[in-house]
Amino acid sequence: MAISSSILFCYLLFSLISNVASSFMYSDDRRDVLFPQILKEEAVTRLDELGKVSDANGYLQRTFMSPASVRAGNLIRQWMEDAGLRTWVDHLGNVHGRVEGLNASAQALLIGSHLDTVVDAGIFDGSLGIITAISALKVLKSTGKLGKLKRPVEVIAFSDEEGVRFQSTFLGSAALAGILPVSALRVSDKSGVTVLDALRENSIDIAEESLLQLKYDPASVWGYIEVHIEQGPVLEWVGFPLGVVQGIAGQTRLKVTVRGSQGHAGTVPMSMRQDPMTAAAELIVLLERLCKHPKDFLSYDGRSNCSTLESLSSSLVCTVGEISSWPSASNVIPGEVTFTVDLRAIDDAGRETVLYELSNQLYQICEKRSVSCIVERKHDANAVMCDADLSSQLKSASYAALKRMTGATQHEIPVIMSGAGHDAMAMSHLTKVGMLFVRCRGGISHSPAEHVLDDDVWAAGLAVLAFLETHV
Amino acid sequence: MAISSSILFCYLLFSLISNVASSFMYSDDRRDVLFPQILKEEAVTRLDELGKVSDANGYLQRTFMSPASVRAGNLIRQWMEDAGLRTWVDHLGNVHGRVEGLNASAQALLIGSHLDTVVDAGIFDGSLGIITAISALKVLKSTGKLGKLKRPVEVIAFSDEEGVRFQSTFLGSAALAGILPVSALRVSDKSGVTVLDALRENSIDIAEESLLQLKYDPASVWGYIEVHIEQGPVLEWVGFPLGVVQGIAGQTRLKVTVRGSQGHAGTVPMSMRQDPMTAAAELIVLLERLCKHPKDFLSYDGRSNCSTLESLSSSLVCTVGEISSWPSASNVIPGEVTFTVDLRAIDDAGRETVLYELSNQLYQICEKRSVSCIVERKHDANAVMCDADLSSQLKSASYAALKRMTGATQHEIPVIMSGAGHDAMAMSHLTKVGMLFVRCRGGISHSPAEHVLDDDVWAAGLAVLAFLETHV
Repeated sequence: MAISSSILFCYLLFSLISNVASSFMYSDDRRDVLFPQILKEEAVTRLDELGKVSDANGYLQRTFMSPASVRAGNLIRQWMEDAGLRTWVDHLGNVHGRVEGLNASAQALLIGSHLDTVVDAGIFDGSLGIITAISALKVLKSTGKLGKLKRPVEVIAFSDEEGVRFQSTFLGSAALAGILPVSALRVSDKSGVTVLDALRENSIDIAEESLLQLKYDPASVWGYIEVHIEQGPVLEWVGFPLGVVQGIAGQTRLKVTVRGSQGHAGTVPMSMRQDPMTAAAELIVLLERLCKHPKDFLSYDGRSNCSTLESLSSSLVCTVGEISSWPSASNVIPGEVTFTVDLRAIDDAGRETVLYELSNQLYQICEKRSVSCIVERKHDANAVMCDADLSSQLKSASYAALKRMTGATQHEIPVIMSGAGHDAMAMSHLTKVGMLFVRCRGGISHSPAEHVLDDDVWAAGLAVLAFLETHV
Repeated sequence: MAISSSILFCYLLFSLISNVASSFMYSDDRRDVLFPQILKEEAVTRLDELGKVSDANGYLQRTFMSPASVRAGNLIRQWMEDAGLRTWVDHLGNVHGRVEGLNASAQALLIGSHLDTVVDAGIFDGSLGIITAISALKVLKSTGKLGKLKRPVEVIAFSDEEGVRFQSTFLGSAALAGILPVSALRVSDKSGVTVLDALRENSIDIAEESLLQLKYDPASVWGYIEVHIEQGPVLEWVGFPLGVVQGIAGQTRLKVTVRGSQGHAGTVPMSMRQDPMTAAAELIVLLERLCKHPKDFLSYDGRSNCSTLESLSSSLVCTVGEISSWPSASNVIPGEVTFTVDLRAIDDAGRETVLYELSNQLYQICEKRSVSCIVERKHDANAVMCDADLSSQLKSASYAALKRMTGATQHEIPVIMSGAGHDAMAMSHLTKVGMLFVRCRGGISHSPAEHVLDDDVWAAGLAVLAFLETHV
């Protein structure tokens, strides 16, 4: 795949380039193609305004169908109408805004992101994708091109991506993609309120049997694109405001339990220990080495081929986030140590190869140390690859946007992997998907410290505009 | 020091010997020198009886001056009197039993251990040393030799070694050694009861200024010996019921804090991470390597000499018992990981050398990984060496006891280090000390699973008897 091969190159090349597009100068004669009032000033103001719509005092929180979510939906709907879109709210609380263009029966382009947030959230996660789409369409309205679109364009603000309230992500997008099980409607939040109850409280009456009617007909859809903040540090590091997403990584979550021989820290000689703590430490060091340099570990047998190794080298990430020991006293050799492993890669076969190799080497270490090791596979999700054509078009659009802003020829737009999940994962079950990432400060997200430069908001809007102008 | 050089030899030699003295056959003509009724049957019965004296229902717990501790003290006092000793309870609740022998003004031999226990304790920890001493003296009474001892012998059941109630170990023995600060009497337990209150509740009225009067005159004391279960696996491993203690290890307790860059487990590439978890894992692996093979790390410069390296190789133990990460979520690269280090060695200079080397290498690893590391030294205690002459005499006595039991010539008695603290540590500030360790099953202690074979209780009693017969 053309996209995957450029990843490593991007890492190497762009690491040497300092902020090439962090601040733009433009002459008055370019104002008419840059639309700063709509794509920058108004978009940033709207992000701030939406960021104040919260269920909590002093911090941002909007969960599925909460009062603030409903208020946010209304605000978004108002902005959609201001951009010339016909709007409605569906039976799962998703807010839609659509323009039919020249041919209402042509396959539609969907552009979306989520309106819900985590607890103590930043103002860009989700909202950025909704607002840049609306702003780009508003530009088309202002230039009289909205009615001339070759196909319908529909902006969707999804009601649930973070899953804070019901611990079940993608309620909104999964329903539209037809992959939300009926049982999801009966899940309860902490107060015992079900998804159905939450909808009914907001005068949305969805019968379980009508859930399937929410599903879009795949034949009616051309594709789905999503703009989202990166939530990672790569774009900042390579000094680029925009990056095209190669795909959303697949994920495996493990729980590793190491059991040894509990003992007095002072009385058991080193040579007689079966210490699960030092064993766990060796396993964590092994895991890191394997994920940093998979090529050193994986052989070119049937299990892994060259392209697998290359995509692994650039996309594989492994994390040990939780660890605990029992009985957890400074003067006791632990009897048991447990830790979690979060392993993600863009290549599902590659992820399995790494897991196979990890498991092999892990049990060897455990045997050598005479400790017992149990590896439990707690969660698995396959990777979602973005569509090559859509990605290529988003790349061209980003290139055009940045060239328009700076006037200078840009280096190739970075192609990066998304390690976090997005609505595009659900939508990939319905249609081809493409994603554009926007640089965020320090790679920080899910925090009030989340920040996107005004110029980067603008660049994202310009890229969506260029995409619509060129490909729709 | 002659003792230290034999440690490694012991480990190597005795690892090949299976239980040489776990079960004994004796002919009737040796019954008169083996005293099984007193040293085995009665001693084991008394251990069981004392093990039932508890403040808790269903498990063993006796803390400083608790009702059960007072009842246990009365029982011990009764057994002391049964052995022909004059008894009293001092102002810190220590129970004493003394026989003057031929010369009441000669320097006295003190034999002691503690009567308090941990929570959910075993029945041997502490009690074994008290009961074997009383039993050995009872044998001397029965053979008419008690009055013919060349010097006074005093058995002391110390009131506090575990420090469960006041978090302050050695209240009893430290007072007799003159190293208990007056402030220790004002320390409170969880209910706000001070040490002074606890004593007064039991009609013991000690004024702060009279604490010093508890201190024994060093000129009146010849030495201190203590029999204790090993609380470790070495004697069982080498197949010996008894071992002579070379010394009690010095200890340093560290808290290591590693701070890195917190991030999303899916979005930060491996090469851009400053992960405190993998750094901590590498540090723990380093610590283990250093403590297992100090010779590979420490050089023969001014800081360490050959004997330091040799004693380190045999006695050094390092433990990471506690570890935690923040924020402790499986999908977040931690921002901070902390862990404890417990490091013990018989050689104080060697311990410092190891700490110096550990610190050097630790900061190198942290620098290489771009994480910040803070090492806090939370606790330090110097090693206590047992007296060479007393140790040699205890070795001969053990040898004689085992030969008497089995009739066969025994291999040299193992010389081992104590990694755990004992009353002998405090008593070393008053007089020369010697300790005898008794094998326990699986090295398990501080647990109801703690177990000493009846024959090993007997062997310990016989060794104390042989020591008294030969050297006192």
